This record gives sequence, structure tokens and C-alpha cells, in this order.
Amino acid sequence: MNEQALQQYLYDHIPLSKAMQVEVKRVHADEVTVAAPLAPNINHRETVFGGSASAVAILAAWSLLHTRLRSAGIESRLVIQSNTMHYDLPIAGDFTARAFIEQEDDWRHFIRMLTRKGKARISVSSVLEYNGAQAGRLTGEFVALAGATD
Amino acid sequence: MNEQALQQYLYDHIPLSKAMQVEVKRVHADEVTVAAPLAPNINHRETVFGGSASAVAILAAWSLLHTRLRSAGIESRLVIQSNTMHYDLPIAGDFTARAFIEQEDDWRHFIRMLTRKGKARISVSSVLEYNGAQAGRLTGEFVALAGATD
Repeated sequence: MNEQALQQYLYDHIPLSKAMQVEVKRVHADEVTVAAPLAPNINHRETVFGGSASAVAILAAWSLLHTRLRSAGIESRLVIQSNTMHYDLPIAGDFTARAFIEQEDDWRHFIRMLTRKGKARISVSSVLEYNGAQAGRLTGEFVALAGATD
Repeated sequence: MNEQALQQYLYDHIPLSKAMQVEVKRVHADEVTVAAPLAPNINHRETVFGGSASAVAILAAWSLLHTRLRSAGIESRLVIQSNTMHYDLPIAGDFTARAFIEQEDDWRHFIRMLTRKGKARISVSSVLEYNGAQAGRLTGEFVALAGATD
């Protein structure tokens, strides 16, 4: 699933991604990066609304799992269980969210459990960047259920 | 600040609130409740996208602090520092987010610090409800800085 296909999937199925004008910049086995402009995500302080920052970070994290599972040929359904978000700096312009899995071992364990037990948990990180600096960081806990497709 | 005034403020200053079709249902000293419909917040599973759920919960939490500070006549600027979100149940229709402060003592301490030191921290809870059940829960940590207005 390349950048264009993921972007189309998001716009077709998650209308908020379109309202936030999210653009898929990079789809890779190790990371997914999406970008969003300030205007549709602005708040009363003319910086990015925390809810937009969180939503874009969650979208990147989900997209990483979704594309990696598709590449692995595993049919499964993803459910977010929880997330923690830290807002480090105000974001006063276009920003990106880059999602990745901290420990590659976690991915192998996740796939093993999903294949054997039909259910597995994994934690995904998503870093927000603005103007060359880290502006925020999300950690999301997801559950995958085998045998159904997203 | 009543329901209508808060709603207008959100629509004027945070365009995502309009994209999510957030409706302010209740503004009270003890709580603020907002509602949102499924359609603009839907995901590929035809339930509410986690990013929308988080954003609506954050909006309710911020609104509670904003309206309470205005009622107290304290000019300040609010910044979200972090939040934790738990997704308990899938949301397959219209939902609400009700924000409140767990301990009333926390509010008194917050106001005392803000007045004395010009800076104070507070934690706000926001519960998502769908179909009569708790579907999620957010805890957000905010900082208020005196002498500037939101």
C-alpha cells in the first residue's frame, strides 16, 4: 500500500482525515509519516488545537499497523485501546506525525501472537514535528483481531 | 458563558469543532457536556474514529476550564500539557463528552495558585457516553497562565 493508496483509503473511510487535510508523505515498513496544515486545525491561540494534534498522531499510528499488516498478508481488525499524548511545544504552522514501533522485537512478538492466538497487542509511537523540532509525542496501545479485515 | 456563546466561540476559533459537528449541550460550574454525531466522525469500521473521540473529549475538558475561569473573572491562557485516553467500547452512533473536575479541592488550589503565582496546573476528566454506557475516558493536564486571555 503506497502513499496514494493510503491517502485515498483514509479520505474514503475516515472523513476527519479530509477535514484535517491530512496528507500521506511516506509509507515504509519502518514508519508512516503524515502531514497536516495549520488552517483546518487551528485553535483560538492560532496554534494547532490539541485535539487535532492527537487525532493526526493516532491516524499515523493506526496507518503504520494497517499498512504493515497488509504487507504481511495478515487479515485482521485493529482496535485502539488507549493512548497517552504529551504536548511539548505549540505548533504554529504545518506539522507532521511520524509513527514507528520502538522495538522491532515487539513487532515479531505481535505477529507471532496474532498468528497463533488470533489476538495480539502492540504499542506504537507517533512523534509530532514542527519547524524541525519535536512538538509532541503519542504512545498508542492497539489490539489486532485476526480473521476480519479493516 | 452559556451554551450558545460557548458553541459560537468554538465554531469561530476551532474549526475542527465545526467539522466534527460538536454541539454544546450543557454549561454548568460543575460540568460541560458536548455532543457529536457519528457521520463526520466515522471510521472504516462505521464506529467513531479514536482521534475524533479524543478531540471531542479534549474540547469538553478545555471548555470546562475556559468557562469556569471566565465566570471567576480570571484572565488567563490555557495550555494542554498531556492527556491519557482509554477507549472502553466502540461508539456506533451519536455520543457525548462530559467534562468535570474530580476533586473540588483541586479547583480551589488551582485558583489560589493562579492568583498568587500567575501559573497553575489542573487535571480535568472527560467521560464519553454512547447509548447510556461509558465508552471512553480522558484525563487531561492543563496549565493556566494569568494575565493573558484566551
